[in-house]
Amino acid sequence: MNRYFDYAATHPMTHAALDHYVAMAKNVYGNPSSLHTQGYMAEDYLTEARRLIKQALGLDMLRGKLLFTGSGSESNYIALTSLRKRMKGKEVITSWHEHDSVALLLEEWEREGIIVHRLKLKDGKFDLDAFTHLLDRDIGLVTLQHVNSDTGWVLPLHHIQCLLKYKKILFHVDGVQALGKIPISVEGIDAYSFSAHKVGGPKGVGALYMERLIPPPYYPGHHQYGIRPGTIDVPGISAFAKALGERQEQLTRFQRNFMAFRAILKEKTSAHVHWLEFDEQSPAIFSFVSHQRDGQWWMTELDDLGFQVSAGSACRAGQNGPNRMLEALGYETSACHGLVRISFGAYTTAEDTSALADAIVILARRVEHHEQTFSR
Amino acid sequence: MNRYFDYAATHPMTHAALDHYVAMAKNVYGNPSSLHTQGYMAEDYLTEARRLIKQALGLDMLRGKLLFTGSGSESNYIALTSLRKRMKGKEVITSWHEHDSVALLLEEWEREGIIVHRLKLKDGKFDLDAFTHLLDRDIGLVTLQHVNSDTGWVLPLHHIQCLLKYKKILFHVDGVQALGKIPISVEGIDAYSFSAHKVGGPKGVGALYMERLIPPPYYPGHHQYGIRPGTIDVPGISAFAKALGERQEQLTRFQRNFMAFRAILKEKTSAHVHWLEFDEQSPAIFSFVSHQRDGQWWMTELDDLGFQVSAGSACRAGQNGPNRMLEALGYETSACHGLVRISFGAYTTAEDTSALADAIVILARRVEHHEQTFSR
Repeated sequence: MNRYFDYAATHPMTHAALDHYVAMAKNVYGNPSSLHTQGYMAEDYLTEARRLIKQALGLDMLRGKLLFTGSGSESNYIALTSLRKRMKGKEVITSWHEHDSVALLLEEWEREGIIVHRLKLKDGKFDLDAFTHLLDRDIGLVTLQHVNSDTGWVLPLHHIQCLLKYKKILFHVDGVQALGKIPISVEGIDAYSFSAHKVGGPKGVGALYMERLIPPPYYPGHHQYGIRPGTIDVPGISAFAKALGERQEQLTRFQRNFMAFRAILKEKTSAHVHWLEFDEQSPAIFSFVSHQRDGQWWMTELDDLGFQVSAGSACRAGQNGPNRMLEALGYETSACHGLVRISFGAYTTAEDTSALADAIVILARRVEHHEQTFSR
Repeated sequence: MNRYFDYAATHPMTHAALDHYVAMAKNVYGNPSSLHTQGYMAEDYLTEARRLIKQALGLDMLRGKLLFTGSGSESNYIALTSLRKRMKGKEVITSWHEHDSVALLLEEWEREGIIVHRLKLKDGKFDLDAFTHLLDRDIGLVTLQHVNSDTGWVLPLHHIQCLLKYKKILFHVDGVQALGKIPISVEGIDAYSFSAHKVGGPKGVGALYMERLIPPPYYPGHHQYGIRPGTIDVPGISAFAKALGERQEQLTRFQRNFMAFRAILKEKTSAHVHWLEFDEQSPAIFSFVSHQRDGQWWMTELDDLGFQVSAGSACRAGQNGPNRMLEALGYETSACHGLVRISFGAYTTAEDTSALADAIVILARRVEHHEQTFSR
């Protein structure tokens, strides 16, 4: 029996999105660039998907451009590579706990001479003072994760937008873990990245909202404003729009459910593990820190008991190393390996969550017993 | 009523591939990087898909690397960008009639100082003499399309492989229109690009076979040998393997059917239009040249009669300009705009093909009547 609590890594396609995908694959299979009935039909569905997705971003149809990519990581890559060409200042502000697709690219930029400032959290909060102070420097770009993938921590986006409003600083936000989990408005943001499979759309579909068109990082082609090559996956994109629309409609219900699941976990397990809570947090992600065992141990042991959880961002899976978010929160080095992420989705139930809580307690007791035996 | 003859632009997902996709999306939705049951299961299906696809390329499981991308165009981009870093010589050989994803990238390389030689056809054949002659120069890379997307013309791959065998020249082949249409062996090829949606797999899945690992063109990440970012679309890739496996099993039957469809078209319409035939040609593509009307006119008129065809490669759709393959074949400039491409797929029937032939005759007679009226 498998009980899946790794929705932040990837969410299975929702029933509605999958049904829609099947109908599209059967009936709307043309290449939207083709100037015939099948092409026009594909183009129509693509336009409608753009409209629905822009609506979820709080935009009307005519505002900005929506580019479809292969993943949230690719969206981040295109956004940053492209914005770099328009940067007025020579320095970049980011955080200490970004996704690899941002963090590793910025490391490359540093080797090429760009100065990168990495903000750390201050008492679990975004360090607005440090940020404001840095804005006096020659900053060309700010790139920050909207919702932290390991802990659900939420960036105070509105504050930052206000601070940047009258400065000519480009602003990119990695919204992969935010879309469909918390309300979003991309007003005042130059580029916002997200991904279909995190909200019940198909894998292999990412997207990037851009306020203005930007020069292409790829070859000069014809698809998608000349920015991204390849036949557009209209069935996948349309299924994404379906999943997202459904999600947005029921956002309040989802959030309420997720809060209830968190309450179950806290109530049953707080005597044994330490849950990470923030003033502003995505309800879809709830992580605890273990001082005695690393995240990998918990993941494997819980898997044996039939529960899939994560030891942090799936994109860094297979890599060991202290969790940067925990470092930023001031945890001691040993504990920084002990992050266990529980994440909820459309098919999570209170019953399964309760069973997961019991399993966590069983394992925690086993660890405690083991520690006591050894310390005797 | 729509009768689709634009399978070379994009092939609808086959019934088997779509059923498989649905089963995968429901049951194997994990991220293959995740170290838990859902992750391991996804990894197992990914490995099996790699095995099936390598088999279709005439390779055993342990040979080379298979990278999954978002499209054939992206595969071409990654292949060329990566091989460039390993080029020993400073010049490149290609043809006059490549897909834009290759042609436009090479134009960029030229601006950066790389010398690019573009071969033209000689009497409808690959110019082996000119090619052999060029090999005396400082050639580092040869990149050629296996099957021409506009005409079905087939590259004499084996001859070229033999000529390159003892030289340290890298060889990339764009096999997007070859896979599942003609028998393939990638022996002696450094990189071979292809795409799922051309053979009844899902859109948004491309692939690239590489003989040896190459440095990444993207950011230094962790997915797919550190070459391509993003959560791997295992359901899509597995459905691609399903479609391809089915196709390979029935390749002889498909080829026989396609040859029969060509015979129907030729028999009924040869008095009116000129079909492009070559000694070596993919049976899946059959194009004719019209001297009096451009391809766009034919495409629109046939669409009105319920038939979807193409006026050449869909990736250049929306762009006007003479067809490079026709130029390479020596057609006069006016005729180079008059390419009409018919392409066959799994769901083409003799009955529909016969109806298409009748429609072509109706339109051809209308053109002839119009020309006569005006020339009187």
